[in-house]
Amino acid sequence: MTSLDAAMTPEEFRRAGHALIDWIASYRSRVEEFPVLSRSTPGSILESLPSSAPDLPGDVAEILEDVEAHLLPGIAHWQSPNWFGYFPSNSSEPSVLGDLLSSGLGVQGMLWATSPACTELEMRMLDWTVEALGLPDHLRFDSPGPGGGVIQDTASSAVLACMVAAREQATCGVANSQGLSQESTPLVAYASSQAHSSIEKSVRLCGIGSRNLRLVETDQNMAMQPEALARMLDEDAAAGCRPFFICTTLGTTATGAFDPVADIAPLAAKHGCWLHVDAAMFGTAALCDEYRWMHAGVEQADSWSFNPHKWMGVTFDCSCLWLKDASLLVESMSIMPEYLRNAATESGGVVDYRDWHVQLGRRFRSLKLWFLYRVVGLAGLRAMVRRHVEITRELVGWIEAEDGFELVAPAPLTLACFRHEAGDEVTRVIMEAANATGSMSLTHCEVDGRYVVRFAVGQWGTTLDHVREGWKRIVSVAKDVTSS
Amino acid sequence: MTSLDAAMTPEEFRRAGHALIDWIASYRSRVEEFPVLSRSTPGSILESLPSSAPDLPGDVAEILEDVEAHLLPGIAHWQSPNWFGYFPSNSSEPSVLGDLLSSGLGVQGMLWATSPACTELEMRMLDWTVEALGLPDHLRFDSPGPGGGVIQDTASSAVLACMVAAREQATCGVANSQGLSQESTPLVAYASSQAHSSIEKSVRLCGIGSRNLRLVETDQNMAMQPEALARMLDEDAAAGCRPFFICTTLGTTATGAFDPVADIAPLAAKHGCWLHVDAAMFGTAALCDEYRWMHAGVEQADSWSFNPHKWMGVTFDCSCLWLKDASLLVESMSIMPEYLRNAATESGGVVDYRDWHVQLGRRFRSLKLWFLYRVVGLAGLRAMVRRHVEITRELVGWIEAEDGFELVAPAPLTLACFRHEAGDEVTRVIMEAANATGSMSLTHCEVDGRYVVRFAVGQWGTTLDHVREGWKRIVSVAKDVTSS
Repeated sequence: MTSLDAAMTPEEFRRAGHALIDWIASYRSRVEEFPVLSRSTPGSILESLPSSAPDLPGDVAEILEDVEAHLLPGIAHWQSPNWFGYFPSNSSEPSVLGDLLSSGLGVQGMLWATSPACTELEMRMLDWTVEALGLPDHLRFDSPGPGGGVIQDTASSAVLACMVAAREQATCGVANSQGLSQESTPLVAYASSQAHSSIEKSVRLCGIGSRNLRLVETDQNMAMQPEALARMLDEDAAAGCRPFFICTTLGTTATGAFDPVADIAPLAAKHGCWLHVDAAMFGTAALCDEYRWMHAGVEQADSWSFNPHKWMGVTFDCSCLWLKDASLLVESMSIMPEYLRNAATESGGVVDYRDWHVQLGRRFRSLKLWFLYRVVGLAGLRAMVRRHVEITRELVGWIEAEDGFELVAPAPLTLACFRHEAGDEVTRVIMEAANATGSMSLTHCEVDGRYVVRFAVGQWGTTLDHVREGWKRIVSVAKDVTSS
Repeated sequence: MTSLDAAMTPEEFRRAGHALIDWIASYRSRVEEFPVLSRSTPGSILESLPSSAPDLPGDVAEILEDVEAHLLPGIAHWQSPNWFGYFPSNSSEPSVLGDLLSSGLGVQGMLWATSPACTELEMRMLDWTVEALGLPDHLRFDSPGPGGGVIQDTASSAVLACMVAAREQATCGVANSQGLSQESTPLVAYASSQAHSSIEKSVRLCGIGSRNLRLVETDQNMAMQPEALARMLDEDAAAGCRPFFICTTLGTTATGAFDPVADIAPLAAKHGCWLHVDAAMFGTAALCDEYRWMHAGVEQADSWSFNPHKWMGVTFDCSCLWLKDASLLVESMSIMPEYLRNAATESGGVVDYRDWHVQLGRRFRSLKLWFLYRVVGLAGLRAMVRRHVEITRELVGWIEAEDGFELVAPAPLTLACFRHEAGDEVTRVIMEAANATGSMSLTHCEVDGRYVVRFAVGQWGTTLDHVREGWKRIVSVAKDVTSS
């Protein structure tokens, strides 16, 4: 082998690879030693890095020294068991290895023909997951009918893809072919006022416009009010608009609220709207029978998505999306230039996943889902889910029992939202002081115009002790803040 | 540590990780032993996999046995030095390790605050790459002005993002806010008839419609004809349309043609169009001074993109996009819900990359670019590029010298397109027979209505011997085909 054959010899790759695996194992073991959130100031990492790429080769050992010295201070430790901010983003060890295999094989999965195993393992993983979550059989490839699933990068891309498919369904393909400027009837989309920002982003991206997104009122639990939705749909239809897309959320970002899909589905049917379900964060809970109450009405949804890269433990990115009729998505996305034509595609007997999303190229992402299932097993995943829900129940009890604090939303699963009765400013200062200890991360949201702290349980290694210590810290900090 | 603390113990992770690194090193060493293209029939991999996820835990050794037995037969070996199909997709060893570190750290880079190192290393890598490619300084973050770059997943997503920014610029934000159905003036986009299918996909996705994409005629070299573009622009403007976006390609997918950006830029300026440059495949060549002829006119481009995940060796996905004025993109993409608000963002002094693309969540992707630069060095990358161009020159000489074959397009870099004079059917049969040997992969395209074989050099390990053997095989197969 000459030096031109590869960027590293097999022996160099082995040595550096083992060292890196060891570094990661060490990092995971000592992750609690670092301040959970980074204390970097803007520009400080940038300044620590040379301004030009090196001309000459170097080695991985030197890079790992720089990771320790220059990058770690700028890392927010999402893999820490004291991570309670935003959402859990579990990059579990088995899935880290599955993704490493994906890079090692280095295949492109844009067409079935460009690596059949990439497409077929993904199909199988999506079918496994339908069963594991107790979703309707009609979403499986191996059931009769046009259902099936795909791994998208994020739930944002998934909702964009579904919205485009819905737009084409509503306009009989005119938007794709002629453009929306030829449409005199405005298309209108609906989501609750608590829905994720990606819904508005999608409405903008696909040319519908923010003005044509209706944010439906929520009830005291922050869930969409079907009566309010019904009223809006009727008003819009009467005003000559065309309702085309309803996005329901199972577990909103701010407070984890669940929209009543079963009550909303008949309204979608009445108005001929695409019904999308975004279960990005809490879909994972459906691994367990006792949380499948969230599936009420799901058999009527046109599309259902969740992110295994959040709670479930698949390293980012892995967002699963299923469609009741995948052909609607494929038809809205497919363009076949000559350079992609091949016998397998023309046989009609294969899935070409490039037609299921914006991107053409794609990684072998199902490997990281496969490794997770194989190494941990469904029983192990269910145990993790149940543990986190139980821990959160304890936390909720502590919040409710603590003078000065109030829970501001139901916490059926693993997100507890609370505030201090002394007001928004005090609540904010308490959160920032707790974060400043370096021992935990918390983030905030707004509920009814009030500043609210979110305590998101779900990092794989989080135990009752971590949460107990975290809550004690908040209470202690609150005493300092309110007495000063 | 209890079994709940992590999906694997550090010791289990170390052991399995080392085994997997060794497996990848072994796979890369024996990659030439496999048929380059998969011989799987549709459904065969699917059938080899159980229909349900396991309940109980397993180990990585078992998975690797299944990879060998069930997945490898379904792999098309993109990392083989005999890969000449589509485009090279080099997943170099250093970048495999960089991406492994990304999974190991498991951070989310959506905001600067969610891991400052993720944002700032990416900014630095984008600046390094501007210099490495000899692109204009105004695209660097560390130059005065509003320029900067971002890693997108694919060039498809990059062109969609730029098209949306251009749409908002042309409509003064009305498309985002009111929707395109409020626009009576159709927006019109332009690309050559040889441009990538992602341009049409973007035009559809963002509501412009295929009808409003003009495919400009090309010259004898398959490059866009500026005179034809000028005529179309004038006609559309006269007809009351609004030209808003011109996509030029440096290295088209079919034949590697280069549009004359310098001649097109004044037309873009005259009509107030956004000028995008898609150099997805061949941008890498600009690492070398002698191929920077492709930069003529680049200082006038609004956006410029290329894919380090193709020839350059960064494991998929890594598509770099620079903007002359990044604020136009950010303004068209940004939505700030309360749950993402933070002090750093509000200071205005940081980059939040979530506003640079469709997705909210994002991996620490710059690590794989950093590892590549650090381990190989620019000198090593340039040597690889030069070697592949030299090899292709030899190949072109052989094609031109061989009776019965003709080169159908210029091959200034590493893509040679040829056909057999006996016609399309014979050309197709020759390609399929060469692929059927299992010793190489070739794909095809259409040029002037004729079936043409593409021989894409650029896999990292490809040497002159591999290409010589490949060409001999084609010639030998052609003799069999034409004599039978």
